[in-house]
Amino acid sequence: MTKDTRPFARSDKNRAMIRAVLALTAMALSAAAQQPPRLRSPEVHADHRVTFRYRAPNAKEVLLSIEGAKNVAMQKDDQGVWSVTTEPLAPDLYGYSFRVDGVRVIDPVNPQIQVNLLDTDSMVSVPGAAAMDWEYSNAPRGELHHHFYASRVVGDNRDFYVYTPAEYDSSGKKKYPVLYLLHGFSDDASGWSAVGRAHVIMDNLIARGKAKPMLVVMPLGYGAPEVLNRDSSAPRDQDLSERNMTKFREALFTEVIPEVERKYRVIADRNSRAIAGLSMGGAEALFTGLNAIDKFAWIGSFSAGGINENYAAAFPALDEKANKQLKLLWIACGTEDRLIGDNRKFLEWLDSKNIHYTKVETPGGHTWMLWRRNLAALAPLLFQDPLRSAR
Amino acid sequence: MTKDTRPFARSDKNRAMIRAVLALTAMALSAAAQQPPRLRSPEVHADHRVTFRYRAPNAKEVLLSIEGAKNVAMQKDDQGVWSVTTEPLAPDLYGYSFRVDGVRVIDPVNPQIQVNLLDTDSMVSVPGAAAMDWEYSNAPRGELHHHFYASRVVGDNRDFYVYTPAEYDSSGKKKYPVLYLLHGFSDDASGWSAVGRAHVIMDNLIARGKAKPMLVVMPLGYGAPEVLNRDSSAPRDQDLSERNMTKFREALFTEVIPEVERKYRVIADRNSRAIAGLSMGGAEALFTGLNAIDKFAWIGSFSAGGINENYAAAFPALDEKANKQLKLLWIACGTEDRLIGDNRKFLEWLDSKNIHYTKVETPGGHTWMLWRRNLAALAPLLFQDPLRSAR
Repeated sequence: MTKDTRPFARSDKNRAMIRAVLALTAMALSAAAQQPPRLRSPEVHADHRVTFRYRAPNAKEVLLSIEGAKNVAMQKDDQGVWSVTTEPLAPDLYGYSFRVDGVRVIDPVNPQIQVNLLDTDSMVSVPGAAAMDWEYSNAPRGELHHHFYASRVVGDNRDFYVYTPAEYDSSGKKKYPVLYLLHGFSDDASGWSAVGRAHVIMDNLIARGKAKPMLVVMPLGYGAPEVLNRDSSAPRDQDLSERNMTKFREALFTEVIPEVERKYRVIADRNSRAIAGLSMGGAEALFTGLNAIDKFAWIGSFSAGGINENYAAAFPALDEKANKQLKLLWIACGTEDRLIGDNRKFLEWLDSKNIHYTKVETPGGHTWMLWRRNLAALAPLLFQDPLRSAR
Repeated sequence: MTKDTRPFARSDKNRAMIRAVLALTAMALSAAAQQPPRLRSPEVHADHRVTFRYRAPNAKEVLLSIEGAKNVAMQKDDQGVWSVTTEPLAPDLYGYSFRVDGVRVIDPVNPQIQVNLLDTDSMVSVPGAAAMDWEYSNAPRGELHHHFYASRVVGDNRDFYVYTPAEYDSSGKKKYPVLYLLHGFSDDASGWSAVGRAHVIMDNLIARGKAKPMLVVMPLGYGAPEVLNRDSSAPRDQDLSERNMTKFREALFTEVIPEVERKYRVIADRNSRAIAGLSMGGAEALFTGLNAIDKFAWIGSFSAGGINENYAAAFPALDEKANKQLKLLWIACGTEDRLIGDNRKFLEWLDSKNIHYTKVETPGGHTWMLWRRNLAALAPLLFQDPLRSAR
């Protein structure tokens, strides 16, 4: 055995330190036994009210921050437990967190977590009378494939997910169309499955015959991951934003798509390739797709954020010839989203170029509640023939 | 379109409520802009000291709780930020959390999270001079397959993961042995990959020629998921513990293994099937494996917890004939683990029955640091011939 492969190889000095440290573990464990009783949070009531609880005996203010709503003050009891019970909530899957004297924290007793590279949230499901598209049903279940690779384009270790429908058989013959589905700023590659429940939505749509069986590829969406380190109060760095987008596209075209088309039985032509995304990923889907109509006949954006407003520079070759080539250009935004203005401005530019599109404005903000519904509404349109984009 | 599939179908009453709630989102967003600057935590210094920071201006006490060590008091500055800088830490991957006036919280600015069904932690990697087994290298990367199904045995929706090595080709001919690898109490099915880094460890061992290419199947380990709801201060419920283990075994035998052997190119015989696990999963591996020597020739346990101490009842048919059939019975525990006594007591019983085993005691507590090394030490022994179990 060589030194670096011995499972417990450590220097004597390190070992002594570790022994000293570990000898105290038992003390720590007995201290843990004196912790206060475990809270119940969230507690979803039969009438769809939800009670949230957080223990912070010395905090001056604790707020509940729940997706799609304003922050709500919580009240402290004599045990130091802050709580609030909401009005009945519409059946949905909500992200939430607490603000404890201004500090964002997740609910420590709720294992349902929305992992995020900047602000992880907790999650609560408020069930409805009927099953929602992102809830498990009797539909046959597809599979999520998690792929890992070292990116030459970006210079990091990264990953992507591939959803295959239940009927996909690795030893079969049938080939499938592919939707490339992009996450938003601060999500990671797991966002669309772990939070967006894309695999469950697709299982349900396919089982009901509403969507064609397809693969869904969910890559990491950063061409310049340092975009995540930017101080949010700093002015927008246009070079960094553009590098983030162009390097993402290069990684998609030269690393992800070739690997998908090598490993999976897919139809590798533009009529069977779609690209869509949310927020940052919506802008990436537009930038990538509208500049590569030879590769994608189906393009969707949900609440796009960060479209380069120098449209002529961003989409230099786009003209009304695209109307014949694009089978769908589907642009959605919530009417309460702060990005609705940016999205409408982009649609006006498309109008000025006489480019056809499907405009989808629905009530809602910049939320996963909207994006799950966007996916459930878009997927049934994809790869269906005949279908033409409509104004 | 039927009502329940319209993407935005909601009652008018709900819609009015949602609109009211969403109208206030902009206010919440502008309040968020006034949050204090983002902290840097953890900060790993070149000399392997690590600084942890947590903002809690009104807390009376904040402790750092780091895996394998006792809790450490943190100090507050005049901005309300608590911090502590450790002594140099041995290169490793550490779970940690904070105790804010007794409440366990993760580090809100660190996206590296150990999801857990009871107590989610943050994670920090302290790099070493040489790459560790669980760190990415130039090794070709395998794939993680995430499978979902409705369990008839347990009556819930559950999942399992399958690692396939880089060389696994779904259209190839070669068949592979399989290690069934079980997580501990409070982990979910992602534990061994997300926290244990099993896929990276296997990639590295296989690329160096130290382990045979194999599949690793990581199922959800609860036969009675209500075991998670048990009040930790309540007395041990032996019936619940046994149901948890027997129903887990039934799901493994009738649901997981048949599905794996149907979907993957595996060698479906006892000489090519191993079972191992950590803590609760260690006890499950022993209970399942030693009662099914006809199915598993390789059995491993890491820091086993919850072995039924009525050994004769738990392992009714086990006798020294097993020595001829078992290729490996590998029983590991950390010498600072509170379970070391239980593990040694089990080994004494095996001695009394003249059952051969490999005893592995190494410095360390009940930690993932130990279990990653256990896997890296066990995997190279599996499916190698000739190899006999040794005392």
